[in-house]
Amino acid sequence: MPRLKPSKTIQNRLEMVRQALRQKSIPALLVAHRADYFYLTGFTGEDSAVLITGRSVTVITDGRFESAAKKEVAWSKVHFRRGDLTSELVKVIQSSPCQRLAIQADKMTVATRDALRKGLTGVRLVDAPPTISQMRERKSAGELKTMDNAIRVAESAYRAMLKTIRIGQTELELAARLEYEMKRRGSTEPAFGSIVAIDANAALPHAVPGNRRVKSGCMILFDWGATVDGYRSDLTRTVFVGSIPSKFKAIYEAVLTSQKKAIAAIRAGVRMSDVDAIAREHIADCGYGERFTHGLGHGLGLDVHESPSLSWRSDQKLVAGMVVTVEPGIYLPGVGGVRIEDDVRVMGNGCQVMSHLSKSLKSAVIDVAR
Amino acid sequence: MPRLKPSKTIQNRLEMVRQALRQKSIPALLVAHRADYFYLTGFTGEDSAVLITGRSVTVITDGRFESAAKKEVAWSKVHFRRGDLTSELVKVIQSSPCQRLAIQADKMTVATRDALRKGLTGVRLVDAPPTISQMRERKSAGELKTMDNAIRVAESAYRAMLKTIRIGQTELELAARLEYEMKRRGSTEPAFGSIVAIDANAALPHAVPGNRRVKSGCMILFDWGATVDGYRSDLTRTVFVGSIPSKFKAIYEAVLTSQKKAIAAIRAGVRMSDVDAIAREHIADCGYGERFTHGLGHGLGLDVHESPSLSWRSDQKLVAGMVVTVEPGIYLPGVGGVRIEDDVRVMGNGCQVMSHLSKSLKSAVIDVAR
Repeated sequence: MPRLKPSKTIQNRLEMVRQALRQKSIPALLVAHRADYFYLTGFTGEDSAVLITGRSVTVITDGRFESAAKKEVAWSKVHFRRGDLTSELVKVIQSSPCQRLAIQADKMTVATRDALRKGLTGVRLVDAPPTISQMRERKSAGELKTMDNAIRVAESAYRAMLKTIRIGQTELELAARLEYEMKRRGSTEPAFGSIVAIDANAALPHAVPGNRRVKSGCMILFDWGATVDGYRSDLTRTVFVGSIPSKFKAIYEAVLTSQKKAIAAIRAGVRMSDVDAIAREHIADCGYGERFTHGLGHGLGLDVHESPSLSWRSDQKLVAGMVVTVEPGIYLPGVGGVRIEDDVRVMGNGCQVMSHLSKSLKSAVIDVAR
Repeated sequence: MPRLKPSKTIQNRLEMVRQALRQKSIPALLVAHRADYFYLTGFTGEDSAVLITGRSVTVITDGRFESAAKKEVAWSKVHFRRGDLTSELVKVIQSSPCQRLAIQADKMTVATRDALRKGLTGVRLVDAPPTISQMRERKSAGELKTMDNAIRVAESAYRAMLKTIRIGQTELELAARLEYEMKRRGSTEPAFGSIVAIDANAALPHAVPGNRRVKSGCMILFDWGATVDGYRSDLTRTVFVGSIPSKFKAIYEAVLTSQKKAIAAIRAGVRMSDVDAIAREHIADCGYGERFTHGLGHGLGLDVHESPSLSWRSDQKLVAGMVVTVEPGIYLPGVGGVRIEDDVRVMGNGCQVMSHLSKSLKSAVIDVAR
């Protein structure tokens, strides 16, 4: 039987959004960003939108998602469109017109807004309050459990993949194996294009796996994540085949200590830029300040990069319930790079590292058969 | 050595865009959509943008893509940002100010446009002509060759996966294997979340692989594609394990004939909605009109869904060089579904089916070991 009432979680989320709308005297909100409407309703269809008013929720979708709508949002009104999304949105909104309609300016294109404006009569479009992004920053117990699952799938797949590495395999083969092991464990899709980068390729923070081959003495950087029930994990480990050159031993230790110092500083109330600075300062002290070329981390959840940004650019403070990646790195162009990344849950008096793969220098040197 | 001049292809594309800008007396264009700036410059970095004026091209990116910028766009100006993209865009644009700047309204968020408006003084934002989307619709010989590669990878991976199917395997295991076989053949990422759907799940046009198992007499619908050098393939086959029930034999033949009729109608100058109607009419004649719940197909290229839309919604005409999917389907809720999809290149006097996997009724009944 389909549910005729939304779950408690969905009810609470809708109520928080409605509260924010009431405070601004906005009678209706249009949510057309998939992760956002999934968060607010549980509806998984693509190319859809949700109209929320004080009393009703209307899902606007198409025939491809008929069964999903029946299963997931039987408690809401569902409008199946035949025309393009924007013109059907106009119809649905106009059928119960409101004087003001909130839209998400950071997620809607100029063209869609212009078309809504042109199509709607007597409706003023206003900016939605940032409530949904703020709500999504703080993960509930249920979300944390799902993220734990996404992390477990990524970790277990990584361990399985490590066992299959052989001398002579390409980055692409290892990436294929890693994604295979994630998917068969229930990951619907890689959280992002998995990075498997050998030697000079590991010097590129966003390397694309190619035809470089595993050889004795090489380094391999893995940056990967799973997607479970919509939620992402995001991990990085760097390993050395057979042995580690002394220069990279020092670099590995610099990155690892930098990461540990940053994690030790994470707790509610601390400024993002201050955590970034702690990690960055240690790497600078080790002589590699110029070679840590990106921010320390980012929020993680339904999107692999979401608010907050754990970087020098952000004055925002950490809040209990946030989940952020902590991923310092040192990159030597043309030679190689080391990055270590864990997913960390912010708590009132500290934090909890949600990922458990070992990252000691010892664990980073691996044996590989021919 | 990095190239100090763009390739002929890139030069031509930039010249076409500049011509369109000159015609509208627009001195500069901002391109912030990744597939578009890749198309116009060859730059693969993410979270970046490209500013094109009559005389210069400036890539605005960050440290993660330093090496990519050196390799791919050494011929352009490159600005490495430290701040967020929008505020650095303001800086770059303001440093060589123009009175009018074109933006892509269908790809830029309202928030970004508002921030540009607020940050820029003396610059009026205007809508870019639809030149880039129109150029991307018509594939060059080089693009067709790359798409051929993306199709070959998908086909070869499918054949390899078919050999590994065993009774008792789950949809997820088959999807994992299919994506594994694509990736090790050079696909950077699945063109979209691969669909492997057994029986009732095959009735969902956008099914998500789960824990349904292969059994004797079941049907399995595969909808998958590869990504090679940025370009996508997109194929669907439906197979029956051991035998095909007579009802589904008729349905399979209805879908196959519908697809063949549509393909036979494809040539430059024909209206999208007319091709859709031909496919739809045959399925209606077979008694399943209500069960073909989506458009016939879509443009394919750097994006898996791009212009044109091969559906009843579009009055646009086919043009030589377009590549479209042709994918009719019949879905019986709770029971199963059949869809057959190929990638088709539009030509002046007909079309070329770029995908070659067999789709005869005979090939659709497969043997599977225990």
